[in-house]
Amino acid sequence: MSEDIFDSSDSVRSAGPLKHAQYVTFDEPLVLDSGARLEQVQVAYETYGQLNAAKDNAVLICHALSGDSHVTRHDEDDEPGWWDSAPVVGPALPIDTNKYFVICPNILGGCRGTTGPNCVNPATGRPYGPEFPEITIADMVELQRMLLDHLGIDKLLTVTGGSMGGMQVLQWARTYPDRVRSVIPIATTPHLSSQAMAFDVIGRNAIGHDPRYRSGAHYDEQAGATNGMFAMKVNVAGLAIARMIGHITYLSREAMEDKFDHDRNEPRDIDSAFEKDTSVASYLAYRGQQFVEIFDANSYVAITRAMDSFNLGEGDALAEALAPATCRWLIVSFTSDWLFPPDQSEEVVDALLARDKLVSYCNVASDCGHDAFLL
Amino acid sequence: MSEDIFDSSDSVRSAGPLKHAQYVTFDEPLVLDSGARLEQVQVAYETYGQLNAAKDNAVLICHALSGDSHVTRHDEDDEPGWWDSAPVVGPALPIDTNKYFVICPNILGGCRGTTGPNCVNPATGRPYGPEFPEITIADMVELQRMLLDHLGIDKLLTVTGGSMGGMQVLQWARTYPDRVRSVIPIATTPHLSSQAMAFDVIGRNAIGHDPRYRSGAHYDEQAGATNGMFAMKVNVAGLAIARMIGHITYLSREAMEDKFDHDRNEPRDIDSAFEKDTSVASYLAYRGQQFVEIFDANSYVAITRAMDSFNLGEGDALAEALAPATCRWLIVSFTSDWLFPPDQSEEVVDALLARDKLVSYCNVASDCGHDAFLL
Repeated sequence: MSEDIFDSSDSVRSAGPLKHAQYVTFDEPLVLDSGARLEQVQVAYETYGQLNAAKDNAVLICHALSGDSHVTRHDEDDEPGWWDSAPVVGPALPIDTNKYFVICPNILGGCRGTTGPNCVNPATGRPYGPEFPEITIADMVELQRMLLDHLGIDKLLTVTGGSMGGMQVLQWARTYPDRVRSVIPIATTPHLSSQAMAFDVIGRNAIGHDPRYRSGAHYDEQAGATNGMFAMKVNVAGLAIARMIGHITYLSREAMEDKFDHDRNEPRDIDSAFEKDTSVASYLAYRGQQFVEIFDANSYVAITRAMDSFNLGEGDALAEALAPATCRWLIVSFTSDWLFPPDQSEEVVDALLARDKLVSYCNVASDCGHDAFLL
Repeated sequence: MSEDIFDSSDSVRSAGPLKHAQYVTFDEPLVLDSGARLEQVQVAYETYGQLNAAKDNAVLICHALSGDSHVTRHDEDDEPGWWDSAPVVGPALPIDTNKYFVICPNILGGCRGTTGPNCVNPATGRPYGPEFPEITIADMVELQRMLLDHLGIDKLLTVTGGSMGGMQVLQWARTYPDRVRSVIPIATTPHLSSQAMAFDVIGRNAIGHDPRYRSGAHYDEQAGATNGMFAMKVNVAGLAIARMIGHITYLSREAMEDKFDHDRNEPRDIDSAFEKDTSVASYLAYRGQQFVEIFDANSYVAITRAMDSFNLGEGDALAEALAPATCRWLIVSFTSDWLFPPDQSEEVVDALLARDKLVSYCNVASDCGHDAFLL
């Protein structure tokens, strides 16, 4: 079959600490929405470009569920970043690293260097694991705010991100109106549809019922932590199942037809214990398997729960929730995105217009589904 | 929350043999599409109404993935049947059991009495289990044809069924044109979309990677067989995952909003080890759990593989595949069905019109999704 079914937004990545990540540890506690406290928090982040003397050229990029701080290559020898399928971030690109200082932190609850379930719980010296507290999108933003304070950046030129990254963008605009000049939420929503929540629920059930998950205690504690993170001892098949479900929701039906229909029964030959005798099966096996090698099931659970609980309301309530925002808005959605469909972006547009905010909206014609934001 | 989230097409059913099922065993072998042979086959079926003297009032109903021979109640005390949420089959209903003799057999590969993985393999005296041969939609139809011969019915007044039942209907029309006067395929397709196949693949992966599945050897052999069927020793959580995925695909996004959005965080209180802290989670937990108690994971694997491999082609190839049909056609689809979307029914309509067949087509306006065919 053609090789292109494995060309995707989701490039092959290595496990473990990221080569270009910088780390900062805060000894002040992070008080979570739930009331729980994280006494010590670490943020892993990468930067591109230079902060100017006025410190007014900073762009914050918020990553999505499976992302991390590695947005794009730092040099030619570097691994690809999660936004490298699209020419978005780099010299002379729309987010021009010759002009702007780009910051991308791994989110709270993630597994690539920022405090999350795979990290050392300072109270015990062992991984948080399933005891990692419930977190919210607002908690993620709060930790990003602490990072900006640390970097001495008072006001961001813009905050952008797609999918769950866009949820963080919405949250930034309403919580810290004085700290953002503009925001660009992409392919996002003020609240998941029940359908999208249902897919998340099933993914978590697949993880939770996999005995290899060991109720979240699946780390190699004996090997010790590197950069504050424990490695996983086993790959959790349930996480691969969750990821496979995700991949269907990221693609439109049309995109799947284009990708798989012409040679359904000619799968790519891959080494996998998952079903692989059709082209679509081999794609899912490859994606699922690759993901469990680099991602922590506990992070998947914690982050999807944060997404599910994110809810800025509808109609008047949404307008009220966004009323504090003073920035300029560019909202982007994609016509074939059925996971975060355009009507959810339009809800945000309507809520902003109801309060006379400065908003531009672009519903991009694309048949790539939700993944369009990465392409 | 309102109780109605558990009102569904999919009514609560008991496990084990069906009270009104009749059984017939054929000692002639069934030669499968694959070339494999089943030396002895059993069919469980139910009938409603009376066969007239001319034997020309018989209606064959083909059930879908999770169905069985129990279409509707035989009397007031009876358990509901799978089509009882819709007033379709019964006295003075569209399929009027005062006029017609209705036959519904459990499909080949099923787990409610017809030969399938949970049945005694006559060669070993033990359950077929994962050794049950690969089957096709055409194999299911072949066994139905043997049942009709046994009942002395030469020509059916109509054959109908929804979803995978509709695939059997399409197959009847082309394989046995002399034995059907009319066919009514509902919410079906001449070939699954890659998206629909992908959901099936993930369901099978969830089953196959569940250690409780024991690679398909999960029967209580010591207890022996009843009506030729072995009971399951354990409930396979992976099958519940597969079923939960199915349930999302059976509902439209709009139907899920109507069902769950008004009280997202007020789940029904159910006893389940699956996630249940939101209304949609409690619904999925209930549905998944209920299903594993009555359905065999090996049947789920065998039947979904038969669905995935069903392919009558597109365009000219489809017209050619249906060319032998001589019956009248009524094709029904539902506007909000995204699993077997209307354009797939329209492909069949176009293929039939290209060969001047007698075809009526009705695309029913409904926001219930694929499940509309049951409602």
